[in-house]
Amino acid sequence: MSVIDEPLRFDARALLAGAGAAKVTLVGAGPGDPELLTLKAAKALGAARVVLYDHLVGDEVLDLVPKQAHRIYVGKRAGHHTLSQSAIIELMLRLARSGKPVLRLKGGDPYIFGRGGEEAQALALAGVPFEVIPGISAAQGAAASAGMPLTHRDHACSVVFTTGHLRGEGETRTVDLDWEMLARPRQTVVIYMGVGTLPIICEQLIRHGLPPDTPAAVVERATRPDERTIDGTVESLPTLALVHGVKAPALIVIGGVAGLHPVLKQSTVAATA
Amino acid sequence: MSVIDEPLRFDARALLAGAGAAKVTLVGAGPGDPELLTLKAAKALGAARVVLYDHLVGDEVLDLVPKQAHRIYVGKRAGHHTLSQSAIIELMLRLARSGKPVLRLKGGDPYIFGRGGEEAQALALAGVPFEVIPGISAAQGAAASAGMPLTHRDHACSVVFTTGHLRGEGETRTVDLDWEMLARPRQTVVIYMGVGTLPIICEQLIRHGLPPDTPAAVVERATRPDERTIDGTVESLPTLALVHGVKAPALIVIGGVAGLHPVLKQSTVAATA
Repeated sequence: MSVIDEPLRFDARALLAGAGAAKVTLVGAGPGDPELLTLKAAKALGAARVVLYDHLVGDEVLDLVPKQAHRIYVGKRAGHHTLSQSAIIELMLRLARSGKPVLRLKGGDPYIFGRGGEEAQALALAGVPFEVIPGISAAQGAAASAGMPLTHRDHACSVVFTTGHLRGEGETRTVDLDWEMLARPRQTVVIYMGVGTLPIICEQLIRHGLPPDTPAAVVERATRPDERTIDGTVESLPTLALVHGVKAPALIVIGGVAGLHPVLKQSTVAATA
Repeated sequence: MSVIDEPLRFDARALLAGAGAAKVTLVGAGPGDPELLTLKAAKALGAARVVLYDHLVGDEVLDLVPKQAHRIYVGKRAGHHTLSQSAIIELMLRLARSGKPVLRLKGGDPYIFGRGGEEAQALALAGVPFEVIPGISAAQGAAASAGMPLTHRDHACSVVFTTGHLRGEGETRTVDLDWEMLARPRQTVVIYMGVGTLPIICEQLIRHGLPPDTPAAVVERATRPDERTIDGTVESLPTLALVHGVKAPALIVIGGVAGLHPVLKQSTVAATA
């Protein structure tokens, strides 16, 4: 062993560590409604022994995990992490290396926000086998239930998903997005984690050329029984969200398709009534 | 009745027609792997009586429909439609109004491309009750199985879905996309239906400022047993796709995350072996 240089020794250790490791499955829990889990995710949950789950995973989804399984909450709320990202990765690796298959459960889709990519990379580099099961993302759940097709021949030939959370340090924290790109016409923009920064988002979009009367909506708790949609325009939405006391989790949908909500939502209600 | 003006008469007729109509359910069939259907979609398929399905829906998904149900193929291939969009809508309305619940099955997610929005609007305007069940979109299936997280702290803070099909008439047919927007840095661009126009897409992206060495990949038949990924850069991908004989259905993924495929795919294979 002494002749092996440092990087190689690291690789060899990782390989040895990984060789006996159990599999980690990154599972998308979907947008809220447990019926929107995939068959594959439901099967994985039903066979789980150790589950590491996030803040946005609902109780009804967790109920699919066997009673005797270990449930470990590693959730994150805006600005309030139970475990840091590196501590979550450490824990996953430790469990997998001790031979325990781990189910890492994330709201929505593991590869759309939620840092599933970083976790998968850490597993790959450590030589721990893993699998990723996609999930219905919040935008898709909101689109279907609130009646806002993400693309539409008359309104949007593309759809952009981005996040509205604050970046940076202290006083200089702000929403650092490519406003010029987001203010383009004929697209749907869906903003995750943007409730707190909605006034900044709408102001910047208007400043960068998006017409103030562009339809915009907030969908709160999409696909859950208490889902609520607030309709407006890029100009009016920040005030409306304030008046109605919109809280996270909520998605912001901007573009022509947001204006279809009154038509497409009504029928959805009629259909499920 | 004679005193009611024209628009009102139309509404009254539509309401009457809709009043006795059965429900139409627009269902996302997911990216290919039948295990990636949602629980809700699988339940709807198992109870279906009449199914209208598209070209991209696989046999294994259709096998979930009861034997005695009517299966009607209304598929579309690039440039080759079995039924026009308006004929599909006509048929859906006719079936629903005759009291038959209709399951409208679409590849991926009904509200991400695939014209689910137009179909839902037609149903809403006709007063026919409907419901939309989202599905895992091809981009999500490809991301999970080929190992390309759609967002990633180091590579992409947003993801754009768009389509690469030709628009326009005859000789002037071309890919009409917002190239400036798609050539922006720090985002993932996923292009549906872009295999045939890949050379145009890559040329335009480079012309609009995307560095030629930006990672790019084609994922053919994502999530199916014969899935194949071709890795390259925006510059090399058109030639590589030609050399390897890439065929639709295939997705193009452009951006830093496409470069993670070699690392994240290997582990996925190890995990499922």
